[in-house]
Amino acid sequence: MSDKIKYVYSFDEGKKEMKELLGGKGANLSEMTSLGIPVPPGFTITTETCNLFYKNDNKYPEGAIEQVDEKLAELEKKMGKKLGDKDDPLLVSVRSGAAVSMPGMLDTVLNLGLNDGSVEGLSKKTGNERFVWDAYRRFIQMFGDVVMGVEHDKFEEQLEEVKKTKGVELDTDLNIDDLKKVVEGYKKVIKESTGNLFPDNPREQLQMSIDAVFGSWNNDRAITYRRLNDIKGLLGTAVNVQTMVFGNMGESSGTGVCFTRNPSTGENKFYGEFLMNAQGEDVVAGIRTPRTIEQLEEVMPDCYGQLVDIYKKLEKHYKDMQDMEFTIQEGRLYILQTRNGKRTAAAAIKTAVDMVNEKLIDEKTAVMRVAPGQLDQLLHKQIDPVAKKEAELLTKGLPASPGAAVGEVVFTAEKAHDWAEEGKKVILVRTETSPEDIEGMNAAQGILTSRGGMTSHAAVVARGMGKCCVAGAGDVKVNVKEGFFTVNGTEIKEGDIITLDGSTGELFKDKLRVIDPELSNDFAQLMGWADKFRKMGVRTNADSPHDSKLAREFGAEGIGLCRTEHMFFEGERIKAVREMILAYDLEGRKKALAKILPFQKEDFMGIFKAMKDLPVTIRLLDPPLHEFLPQDEKDIIDIAKGLDVSVEKLKQKIEDLKEFNPMLGHRGCRLVITYPEIAEMQTEAIISAACELVKEGQNVMPEIMVPLVGLKKELDFNAEIVKRVAEETIKKYGVKLDYKIGTMIEVPRGALIADELAKTAEFFSFGTNDLTQMSFGFSRDDAGKFIKEYIDKGIFEDDPFQKLDQDGVGQLLKLAVEKGRKTRKDIKLGICGEHGGDPSSIKFCHKIGLNYVSCSPFRVPIARLVAAQVEIEKE
Amino acid sequence: MSDKIKYVYSFDEGKKEMKELLGGKGANLSEMTSLGIPVPPGFTITTETCNLFYKNDNKYPEGAIEQVDEKLAELEKKMGKKLGDKDDPLLVSVRSGAAVSMPGMLDTVLNLGLNDGSVEGLSKKTGNERFVWDAYRRFIQMFGDVVMGVEHDKFEEQLEEVKKTKGVELDTDLNIDDLKKVVEGYKKVIKESTGNLFPDNPREQLQMSIDAVFGSWNNDRAITYRRLNDIKGLLGTAVNVQTMVFGNMGESSGTGVCFTRNPSTGENKFYGEFLMNAQGEDVVAGIRTPRTIEQLEEVMPDCYGQLVDIYKKLEKHYKDMQDMEFTIQEGRLYILQTRNGKRTAAAAIKTAVDMVNEKLIDEKTAVMRVAPGQLDQLLHKQIDPVAKKEAELLTKGLPASPGAAVGEVVFTAEKAHDWAEEGKKVILVRTETSPEDIEGMNAAQGILTSRGGMTSHAAVVARGMGKCCVAGAGDVKVNVKEGFFTVNGTEIKEGDIITLDGSTGELFKDKLRVIDPELSNDFAQLMGWADKFRKMGVRTNADSPHDSKLAREFGAEGIGLCRTEHMFFEGERIKAVREMILAYDLEGRKKALAKILPFQKEDFMGIFKAMKDLPVTIRLLDPPLHEFLPQDEKDIIDIAKGLDVSVEKLKQKIEDLKEFNPMLGHRGCRLVITYPEIAEMQTEAIISAACELVKEGQNVMPEIMVPLVGLKKELDFNAEIVKRVAEETIKKYGVKLDYKIGTMIEVPRGALIADELAKTAEFFSFGTNDLTQMSFGFSRDDAGKFIKEYIDKGIFEDDPFQKLDQDGVGQLLKLAVEKGRKTRKDIKLGICGEHGGDPSSIKFCHKIGLNYVSCSPFRVPIARLVAAQVEIEKE
Repeated sequence: MSDKIKYVYSFDEGKKEMKELLGGKGANLSEMTSLGIPVPPGFTITTETCNLFYKNDNKYPEGAIEQVDEKLAELEKKMGKKLGDKDDPLLVSVRSGAAVSMPGMLDTVLNLGLNDGSVEGLSKKTGNERFVWDAYRRFIQMFGDVVMGVEHDKFEEQLEEVKKTKGVELDTDLNIDDLKKVVEGYKKVIKESTGNLFPDNPREQLQMSIDAVFGSWNNDRAITYRRLNDIKGLLGTAVNVQTMVFGNMGESSGTGVCFTRNPSTGENKFYGEFLMNAQGEDVVAGIRTPRTIEQLEEVMPDCYGQLVDIYKKLEKHYKDMQDMEFTIQEGRLYILQTRNGKRTAAAAIKTAVDMVNEKLIDEKTAVMRVAPGQLDQLLHKQIDPVAKKEAELLTKGLPASPGAAVGEVVFTAEKAHDWAEEGKKVILVRTETSPEDIEGMNAAQGILTSRGGMTSHAAVVARGMGKCCVAGAGDVKVNVKEGFFTVNGTEIKEGDIITLDGSTGELFKDKLRVIDPELSNDFAQLMGWADKFRKMGVRTNADSPHDSKLAREFGAEGIGLCRTEHMFFEGERIKAVREMILAYDLEGRKKALAKILPFQKEDFMGIFKAMKDLPVTIRLLDPPLHEFLPQDEKDIIDIAKGLDVSVEKLKQKIEDLKEFNPMLGHRGCRLVITYPEIAEMQTEAIISAACELVKEGQNVMPEIMVPLVGLKKELDFNAEIVKRVAEETIKKYGVKLDYKIGTMIEVPRGALIADELAKTAEFFSFGTNDLTQMSFGFSRDDAGKFIKEYIDKGIFEDDPFQKLDQDGVGQLLKLAVEKGRKTRKDIKLGICGEHGGDPSSIKFCHKIGLNYVSCSPFRVPIARLVAAQVEIEKE
Repeated sequence: MSDKIKYVYSFDEGKKEMKELLGGKGANLSEMTSLGIPVPPGFTITTETCNLFYKNDNKYPEGAIEQVDEKLAELEKKMGKKLGDKDDPLLVSVRSGAAVSMPGMLDTVLNLGLNDGSVEGLSKKTGNERFVWDAYRRFIQMFGDVVMGVEHDKFEEQLEEVKKTKGVELDTDLNIDDLKKVVEGYKKVIKESTGNLFPDNPREQLQMSIDAVFGSWNNDRAITYRRLNDIKGLLGTAVNVQTMVFGNMGESSGTGVCFTRNPSTGENKFYGEFLMNAQGEDVVAGIRTPRTIEQLEEVMPDCYGQLVDIYKKLEKHYKDMQDMEFTIQEGRLYILQTRNGKRTAAAAIKTAVDMVNEKLIDEKTAVMRVAPGQLDQLLHKQIDPVAKKEAELLTKGLPASPGAAVGEVVFTAEKAHDWAEEGKKVILVRTETSPEDIEGMNAAQGILTSRGGMTSHAAVVARGMGKCCVAGAGDVKVNVKEGFFTVNGTEIKEGDIITLDGSTGELFKDKLRVIDPELSNDFAQLMGWADKFRKMGVRTNADSPHDSKLAREFGAEGIGLCRTEHMFFEGERIKAVREMILAYDLEGRKKALAKILPFQKEDFMGIFKAMKDLPVTIRLLDPPLHEFLPQDEKDIIDIAKGLDVSVEKLKQKIEDLKEFNPMLGHRGCRLVITYPEIAEMQTEAIISAACELVKEGQNVMPEIMVPLVGLKKELDFNAEIVKRVAEETIKKYGVKLDYKIGTMIEVPRGALIADELAKTAEFFSFGTNDLTQMSFGFSRDDAGKFIKEYIDKGIFEDDPFQKLDQDGVGQLLKLAVEKGRKTRKDIKLGICGEHGGDPSSIKFCHKIGLNYVSCSPFRVPIARLVAAQVEIEKE
């Protein structure tokens, strides 16, 4: 045997490190066995066997079946029972178990080994004939279903028939003879459905079950599950064959599930539930209400004491919270499974920090223990899950910005603002939002749009504000004029209350209970450790002093993207902005810009103060000018009046500025090429704000960023203006101020000529929203409609606006990093697209060597955590 | 000397092959000297000297000035005169001359060597004191201006003053004393302007002139010129110092310019003009009307005979049509310059073909002699240049599609169609065109739009139709409702006549005379030779049997892009298309598609017939569906009635399909992912059309192309449908048919993952219009407005929609070619964007190894010629 491949391992031959070969379940069963924990004996057929089975055209490798026979013989010997024995039969369970837990595969066959003969033996042995016949009929049903492929319903029909004949309602009302009839009927069902007899030979039963487990590795559901969860590189599944123990053999038997700590809160207290005289599935099924684990102490103090010893031993051994399954058979405790327990974000953090304090794990391990994506839960309001269960779900859109919101429906930004002033809580419902809606969005509790994707205007702005948003809810048909919307047949009027779940995209009727977020000290502790280990910087995208402060509280180390256009919409400024757009000539534009200057300067001073000693990247005006003009007939008339121009002139200007594809239109650095005075004003505002603070003794680090650059000359044209005005302004103030000029890489061509751009740019920031739009040719405002379809049809695995497309867009990033650094070794590289807050995208940014990521304030902790984890993983 | 670098060459030391070193002018002067042609002696300072001068911080390399002294001494010895001699002075001209002719540099200093002393000597020697003083004052003026940098106007003022004092109007009314006063005044001007004296020493005059020529190599104008004309790799300019001869020394002197053949027609007949008693500049200035060269035979028969001998000798020697300058000084003929003559397209072709017939050059040389860009002239109508001079130019837009058109203004496609039916010639004037306008565009003589760039809908369609189009004429403000447009203050009403020049973008009021194009036999002959030498294929973009036939006549070897959407607009089909869009479900869509099928099939049969034995690439439906729905209130009502749906429903659908950025919206392969039935119908139409013809014995080579692919799965989804339906259809017909499935590479991501795409695609066709749009982030429909500004401000050197952007977009093409071929060695690669008809872009396509280019029918000859030229150049 020694020179042959070992395909089968007894539970006393493996260990937890052999997960790849034995699967998670098998490895842990072995580990527990070697720890002396009472595990029902058994053996594991390796994942390698599965792999060779597939490679070998669905045939077992030579010797594998013989090894199963050997291990089975050993098991029989150990247990003193034989499979199918007429006097004292061995019963086993057969379970799949890959290295990664994988729903979608064949899971379990129980009670294997029963046949017409062994039923008699077992009945005699247990003295519980009814129990044995019930086990038999369950086995046939399970085997027929999962191994032989008979429809589940057919067995149910058969069972119903017997109950009907007998005139009873419950399974438990069936007596032994009834159960015998059921067994007979089940066998017939199998024969009729498959043409084959139910196999009477237990070895045949075992082989067919093993075959079925291996077969299920490549069924559609399993393949889909692996694809969706990006599970790659596994050999296959293992098969665990284990002696059966029964929790339903009377009042001294029972079964339960327990956690070594509370998986909801992380509290270090034994947690779980159990049922006496029951099988595992009964605990889960919820027909009987299980008891809490503490109550086991009263019922079976010995077993409880033993279980407590075991859980402590296991947690100490695994150094992580364990999720265990146990069965008590006639007063004897068996552990059937242990694994690292799933937990909420709060529990993950508390457990990790507690375990460091308990010296069970080190800080790095603690940092690795928290799944970054989970943090969102902690930072936002949540709908009470209990309330949700009973609520009326109207529809589901895209989960555009997490959190929960309750409020009265309004359809215009104005009304949102007005009602909010009156103290009402409102939800702004729009087909889509535009920059004009900013104030209304700010006033609302949450935003619902019927159009647009994850990076639509509504989504981006809402995330920036940390405000709940459901976008692209296509079923919602908004009728602004008449003040209602319909959704799947329900009409919701202005003033009606709805509830949004921005974390799931759900829209509910009426008001649901909402739970406020709370950040624990443990959270701060864990983030502190993360900061210690990470090397990549984390900045934030923030456009206001308020957001800047918030982001700084969340740990942002500067601003990676300060958009200046949102500032243009507030109060008096928008009027001046419109004046500028409508001006006949340079002089007129300059006059209007002069009015905006003091506002902008004030904005920047506020932001610089909030970001004292930290760098602040400010992007020059980006959107096309028509975004600042009204679209609505009524607004046009009002605004024309306010501006003292004719309605016709305003309309003509709106018409002139109209663009077919504004996304690819006259915006970003292109505006400055036409109107250099805009960049002049903005630079003056930025630099004079900085100079004022320098005068007050504050350290200010402005970085001026030119957007939408595709040509070196575009950048140079902009950079020259910025440099000239900056130098003039600094000279005027007579202070010393360092500032940087850089560019966004967001146009594919910008990435392609990054070596050229780096001659001028002192930093690059990857605008991956636009880069994704242009690389795919997807407008983020329009793609919402079909991206869902793309995901449904398997064209996309993920929405590339949520997870950075590493294969395509990623190539451009990599290229730009290489080219940029080739020209300018110390160029500062960051990302400020929405991807800066997505874990897998942050990992990619780390891999290609960016200096920092920048994301909305609420995502800053996520980014900090991921940045630490990639660093620790690298070690 | 032999081991030293030679910086200066006498005219008898060089030859024409030394152009790089001696400049074009110098090399040809040397060549003529060695041919024994009477060239005034002189010498050339090399371009290398210029190069070293700059490298050496504006100092001459060691020995260079000494070599000038030596050559000057040789020249003085040869001429028996000395520079500045008081009795018989040598006068010289100093001219720049790089290897490539380059306006923007210092051109010429004449009469150098005159000073207060030599004036006397020369007067004595020539006996013409007035002539000499006039020459002297001209020299000071020219020297002061170009060498010493004094403003030209200051000399003019001085001259005016003398004339005023004297009370005369003309220079010729000044006598010797007046001229002396002018000379005195000029010297004062120089002193006052520069602080320096006019240099009296002729050697100093010479040195300063040489310095100035070298200095002018790097003046702004010269640098700009080199940049704009992409002139790279030159060492610098040479300087030619040549003995002066005078054509203005009396009635036995004269000067002229001549061509060895007619540069307008190519006719093999001596051609040129001359003036007696005049200087070169007088011929050009146009104050006196020159006489034709034949008349010289009467005036100076000896000189004429000599000139005829010389021109024949030169043409035979240079094997190309020569453009010569000559001067007769007191009965003696001198040749001052010869170079290859510029010529019209017609002349270029005729000359090239004639010269092959005359056995002067071979076929390859003939092919190289025609500039491809010129061919456009030959293939389209032209406005009579004489008529143009007197016409009222209203504005200038983009030269979107070459040719000329005269017609009555109409503002709607419908009216264009109706009026054309009545036999009127119309010009369709629109803000922009959309696919709905196709019929009207087809009916019109030409198209004028106020928006959109070189690849806007109007431009692309017009070029495809070979129809004159001026696009993006921003000054044109169209008022469709009231039936007029205004342009720079002029109002043009419906029915008024205008004339368009699509080759220049000009718009004229009223009717101008138009000249029809005529293709000569020589053209056919030359294109035949081109085809013999080229290896890259040339296909056409054509959507109809008519265009296909036309393109085939122009030499297309198949269709590289057949757009199917245009076919959807004609007659009954558009109704069925709209039915499909408005259908509630799959069944409804299929019913509508079934109505379109027979039309599509017929379309394809016509095209396949026209392209018998040649490949035809058909692109599946590309535009977003909303393009097929009406936008106009009135149209909506009419169409709703015609379709028997409510106006509301139609409006709702229009609203539902509205997109923010249709360019990046739900179109191309994305449509098929939502509506597979569209690809099913189109494939059935294509393949059944092909099968019908195969049954008739024709060879058909359909290639089905999937547009807008950015993901492999998009392509696969489409390709699977095409394959399935194609196989079914072929089976139904029971014939043998080979077809190919490929994709357009037009989305940047498509290029980035070309290796993946090539696993499925049997061919790629680069859609460089969209690829340019997305790589730059420029919408072609919107960029028209600012691209012009970009070019004006030097941000762009060329419109990237006209000339492929090799540095940026070109990188993606190269990458895709490499990746595509890596996966599939024999993948067929072509380009079908508008760039397929642009010479520099075609060269790039050849360089990166494309198999073919595809362009609009009228550009096919250009592409054939360029493809031949790159092949010949490679040799």
